[in-house]
Amino acid sequence: MNMLVEPGNGGIEPNAFGQRIMELAERLAHWSETSDGLTCTYLSPAHRAVAAQIRDLMRGAGLITDIDAVANVVGRYPASESAAPALIIASHYDTVRNAGRYDGRLGVLTALVLAEHLGRLGRKLPFHLDVIAFSEEEGVRFSSSFLGSSAVAGRFDAKLLERRDADGVTLTAAMREAGLDPAKIPALARRHDELVGYLEVHIEQGPVLLEAGLPVGIVSAITGSVRSMVTITGTAGHAGTVPMAQRHDAAAAAAELVLYVEKRCSQASTLVGTVGKLAVPDGAINIIPGRCELTLDVRAGDDAVRDAAMSDIVAEIGRIAARRGVTIDSKEVQRTAAVRCSPRLQSLLADAVTRAGVKPRHLPSGAGHDGMMFAGLTDVAMLFVRCGNGGVSHSPREIITAEDAEIGARVMLDAVLRLAEAS
Amino acid sequence: MNMLVEPGNGGIEPNAFGQRIMELAERLAHWSETSDGLTCTYLSPAHRAVAAQIRDLMRGAGLITDIDAVANVVGRYPASESAAPALIIASHYDTVRNAGRYDGRLGVLTALVLAEHLGRLGRKLPFHLDVIAFSEEEGVRFSSSFLGSSAVAGRFDAKLLERRDADGVTLTAAMREAGLDPAKIPALARRHDELVGYLEVHIEQGPVLLEAGLPVGIVSAITGSVRSMVTITGTAGHAGTVPMAQRHDAAAAAAELVLYVEKRCSQASTLVGTVGKLAVPDGAINIIPGRCELTLDVRAGDDAVRDAAMSDIVAEIGRIAARRGVTIDSKEVQRTAAVRCSPRLQSLLADAVTRAGVKPRHLPSGAGHDGMMFAGLTDVAMLFVRCGNGGVSHSPREIITAEDAEIGARVMLDAVLRLAEAS
Repeated sequence: MNMLVEPGNGGIEPNAFGQRIMELAERLAHWSETSDGLTCTYLSPAHRAVAAQIRDLMRGAGLITDIDAVANVVGRYPASESAAPALIIASHYDTVRNAGRYDGRLGVLTALVLAEHLGRLGRKLPFHLDVIAFSEEEGVRFSSSFLGSSAVAGRFDAKLLERRDADGVTLTAAMREAGLDPAKIPALARRHDELVGYLEVHIEQGPVLLEAGLPVGIVSAITGSVRSMVTITGTAGHAGTVPMAQRHDAAAAAAELVLYVEKRCSQASTLVGTVGKLAVPDGAINIIPGRCELTLDVRAGDDAVRDAAMSDIVAEIGRIAARRGVTIDSKEVQRTAAVRCSPRLQSLLADAVTRAGVKPRHLPSGAGHDGMMFAGLTDVAMLFVRCGNGGVSHSPREIITAEDAEIGARVMLDAVLRLAEAS
Repeated sequence: MNMLVEPGNGGIEPNAFGQRIMELAERLAHWSETSDGLTCTYLSPAHRAVAAQIRDLMRGAGLITDIDAVANVVGRYPASESAAPALIIASHYDTVRNAGRYDGRLGVLTALVLAEHLGRLGRKLPFHLDVIAFSEEEGVRFSSSFLGSSAVAGRFDAKLLERRDADGVTLTAAMREAGLDPAKIPALARRHDELVGYLEVHIEQGPVLLEAGLPVGIVSAITGSVRSMVTITGTAGHAGTVPMAQRHDAAAAAAELVLYVEKRCSQASTLVGTVGKLAVPDGAINIIPGRCELTLDVRAGDDAVRDAAMSDIVAEIGRIAARRGVTIDSKEVQRTAAVRCSPRLQSLLADAVTRAGVKPRHLPSGAGHDGMMFAGLTDVAMLFVRCGNGGVSHSPREIITAEDAEIGARVMLDAVLRLAEAS
């Protein structure tokens, strides 16, 4: 245990952070768009109630608090000097449908309990500590992610304002109905010289820390992805009358591709490749598949690693098509660059993890996070907290322990204080 | 060319059989349940019109003709002795939806033109020649195949009479509405001692003869099939956050199975194996498949060959499940025995093929045919005629040439006359 738990040093009760985080996560989960399960999408009544609750919690911690023009809840624990730059500690409070309680909210609540603690201590920092609960990260309602963090990072795409939800409501209309003024979005953008850095705590949403027996880990990079839609056209035929050697079976070609993607993407540690959709349209038990459709999602912590894999996959697609006499059409539908986390902030977190008695483990994030928006604007780092239940997320089965939340909060507090000392 | 084309021997005009078969196939295709394409299912108005047309053609050929209790059109070219046994030459006149013109009907029309020719010659045979146009083989309307041939073979399943079509009409009601009396079906059954054998001409419905450059081939066996529904349950997960080594991907397991089926079923000449349906239910581009469903259809000319393959596939399913940590549930939904064609009648056809100047090629039928119903009752043999367009069938693209139909008819005539000489 580090110095922060020692009595007389503003001592923290054992597990006080963790217990409060779990309690508040439960409280926030009370507001949902559905009667069973947790669903909290952008600007729904549940979402607005959660924003108000977070605002009240921030105010209770003594933060200078505001709900901004995109419904981010922003609470500032001010530096001694008003002209000081700010350290952002943030995550999001919206959820997917039928969500777990911790995706996004763990980061918001960890930042909140740190601010509460610093307030109790009366400890002043050489930078503002901006606790931000981003309003939108999951992209559920308007099929566009990062509405909240992109605004603060100065990357909000104004074209999205005309986008409509499933009920035909534009983003602009939804914002106005919630009392928000889209015209004020550009003013939310932070500048490089106003920022010390960006930190985010998030659940891992995977099994790596669980398998490694570690409560927390340091994110090395947020992976970039390439996504493609693949259509294989072979020759349909009667399952009984076409000899094996004369077939051009679209599903067999797809099977080769699925296994190649799996094998190739096992060759680098941060690389993953997934065929998530796979179907023979109008397939029948007695017809050789003439067509097979599948999707491809390849990610890595390093774009060069990912692109090398994609290049090999494209070459293999050509070989499969030639060998089997089928046509394979692959259409890239998305490409995002990987974000490398700041080496300086990774070291800061790793040192704090070590002081918490935990072996520092660096791992990539295969999922996207708000921190991506701040890449290029300021130094970014993330701390992952272990998920239980095999690492499941985006599910009511998503769980963490109070003990792990406690360790996450202590590591962050330690890192913030070290950063303050170094500033 | 064989003796039958020689003048003075009841000489046939070059291609006369083939031309007439093509012309009559076109005429029969005029009646359809749909305004575009050919659909002729059991007891539809189109089906009844085609039956009447075939009856009229048979009568025009001088056959003793009847539409029986299941709507088979039966025309007898009588032997000199009324107590003689019968040789059946038959196929079916119903079609699948959006069918080709030759599946089934080629066999009916070949038998018809032979009877016309024998009638013109006035040539008497030591057996009755029963030309039968079976009313139902495809199983479209009542999801049960062989309604026509099963009745004549004494294998009609009376339980089917209560089966309903898509409109809720029972088979009994459909038959009565068409003026047929289901009570008379049992009397249609032929006995072993009344039969000389069963011959059928059918389009191949595959590419073997086309690839081999042969107009006709002798069917060695009608393959039996085993069909299974396979469900693979793995672990769903985020496509970005679960490392490759920690996945239990149901689609990757399915891919292994697809390729194993393909490889194993390439190891014996008459063996074929097909995964016709393949799907990740509710799959998403960014989710590791937790479930994959597929179908399996394995056939061979020899049940032992097929069963050995199925046994290996089942063992491989166990290995894939164990290695990948997934559950694979395989449920057998159908099993039919292979029917070996009569060696004696195969030789008869092969000799006739040779005399027609064609290399005799024996090949299994991967599709089911009316002849299967007669296995065990009498000797069965079939002659396949080459399909064009890569062997496609059950499609408007199904084609044959008049020249190939001609060769098929001459081979059958030669075989019938040889059988008569040997009787």
